[in-house]
Parts: sequence; structure tokens; C-alpha cells
Amino acid sequence: MGTSTQVQPLLINYKTLEEFKRFKEYGIQELTMLEDLQGNIVENNSESPFYGIYIGNALVARMSLYRVSAKYDHYFDPPQDYLELWKLEVLKDYQKQGYGKQLVSFAKSFHLPIKTNPRVNSHAFWERMGFQKATYKMERDLGENPLLWLPEGVDEQNDSES
Amino acid sequence: MGTSTQVQPLLINYKTLEEFKRFKEYGIQELTMLEDLQGNIVENNSESPFYGIYIGNALVARMSLYRVSAKYDHYFDPPQDYLELWKLEVLKDYQKQGYGKQLVSFAKSFHLPIKTNPRVNSHAFWERMGFQKATYKMERDLGENPLLWLPEGVDEQNDSES
Repeated sequence: MGTSTQVQPLLINYKTLEEFKRFKEYGIQELTMLEDLQGNIVENNSESPFYGIYIGNALVARMSLYRVSAKYDHYFDPPQDYLELWKLEVLKDYQKQGYGKQLVSFAKSFHLPIKTNPRVNSHAFWERMGFQKATYKMERDLGENPLLWLPEGVDEQNDSES
Repeated sequence: MGTSTQVQPLLINYKTLEEFKRFKEYGIQELTMLEDLQGNIVENNSESPFYGIYIGNALVARMSLYRVSAKYDHYFDPPQDYLELWKLEVLKDYQKQGYGKQLVSFAKSFHLPIKTNPRVNSHAFWERMGFQKATYKMERDLGENPLLWLPEGVDEQNDSES
């Protein structure tokens, strides 16, 4: 780890959105946040679903977290609120230093099951983090590669419920 | 284009699954298809959601298509059956020859709206194909970058319905 840097919630402002451009997974979500800020549809320093790690003034790692309601849970048994985690990314120069693990540990600290849909080439990382492949169901998963983290007492939903 | 090669449905068999390994977007879906074939859970030459283009004996381009029922439609107005399109990919040596466009044209030929969630760096292609960015809604879209193709008479769902 080599750092006592904390995970912190990221606020929507021009500095954050400028820093987001350094991450590879920059997409429609970020573009929308920028447009909403420019159009005064959201206030400066509004909350965002993003959490990140700063070193000094620079954002070096981030992820997005959203709590999905139990009524939309098609992954866990018993069905329950769970966290969807996306856009976990550590800037290239800061990789292999434990920041990815620090973000995932933060997500686990809510003691809810977690679902993520990572880039295909990151499966080894997620396996080390204790995530397992969901049983692929085409109607549910389509183009996703869902990986799940099951806290104690939680299982994957079985086929008969799908 | 420079080819009269047709788009064809791909059957699940060892040859197809071996060819899938040459595509970058190889994930849990393909692994599951392989396991199901090995475990006799699906028969050899079963139908798959994949369509592809062969040159001679070699699969050079593919995509997956699935018809989502109107009751799960959160994108189009009026709500209706639509096609989810994923894993559109042309092997590197065969790019810029119209095969991607040929697959998308095939998908459009069903005259249903289409939704896709492409890799961020392919937006220019999708724009040329007439796709537009969906209005990003976090609860619905999470980590996706949804792009939509709207046939005549179809609009995007507006915010009040979300």
C-alpha cells in the first residue's frame, strides 16, 4: 500500500471533471455531468456516484458505486439491496501500489453484495479481490461479464428464479 | 464493401467457439457457451445470439443480437420490442472494409429500434451508422454508454417516464 491516503467521495466540479479526462473509461456519464454543470442543471460541488483517491492535489484512482434496490436484484439470494461498482481505474503511473484494492475494500465496507462488469482483461485482479463469475444468463447479462462479491450468508440466485 | 459475403447466424460448435478466441471481446458469455457444449448442456450446432461474416472458412466479423421485450423497454417511446446489439467486432486485418457496417445494416433490417453499449473509442463509427447518445440516466445506465438507433416514428423516452 505505502500510503495513508483515504478514499473520498468526489464532488461534481470543473476540477473533478477535468481530472476525469485522464481516465480511459471516460464516457457519456462524464460528458453528461459536464453538460449539466455548464448548463446549471446541477450545482457546483454536487454529490456524484464517484469515489476516489488523491495524492496531493491529483486524483489517481476512482470508481463509481450505486446502491441498487432489492426489487431490481436479479443476482443475489436472498434478493437484497446491492452495490453496482463500475469504472474502477487507477492511473497508469500509480498502478500496482494497492489503490485498486483500497477502493474495492471501501466498497466491501458497506457489507452489501457487489456486482461489477469489468473489462475482460481485469479478471485476475477481481479474482484476487474475492469476486467470482456470475452464472451467465443471456437475457439478463447480454454483453456483460458480471462478477459478484458475496458477503457471508449470501448466495448467487439460482436458475429457477431467473 | 468489396465483397458479396453474407451475414449469417452462428451455431454453437467447437469451430465457432475456437474462432471466437480471436476476438478481443471474449468473456463469460463465450466461456459459458464452451462449458455448456463440453458438458452436453447444449447440443452441438445449437442456435446462438451471434451473427457473423465468413471469408472462406474464417470468421472475420461478428455481433450479438437479442430482442428485448417491450415490457423491459426503458429507452424508446413508444415502449416496444427492441434489439440489444453487443460485441460487434471486426478482426484487425479486415477492418475498414465495410464489414462492421454490413453487420449493423443487418441489425437495422429487422426495423426495430436498436440499443448498444459500445467501447468508448468507437463512437465515431456508431455516429456514422446513425446512432445517437442516449440521455444518460444513472439509475438506468450505471456504467454503460448507451447509444440508440431510432427508426422513423420512434423517439427516446423522456425523463418523466424514468
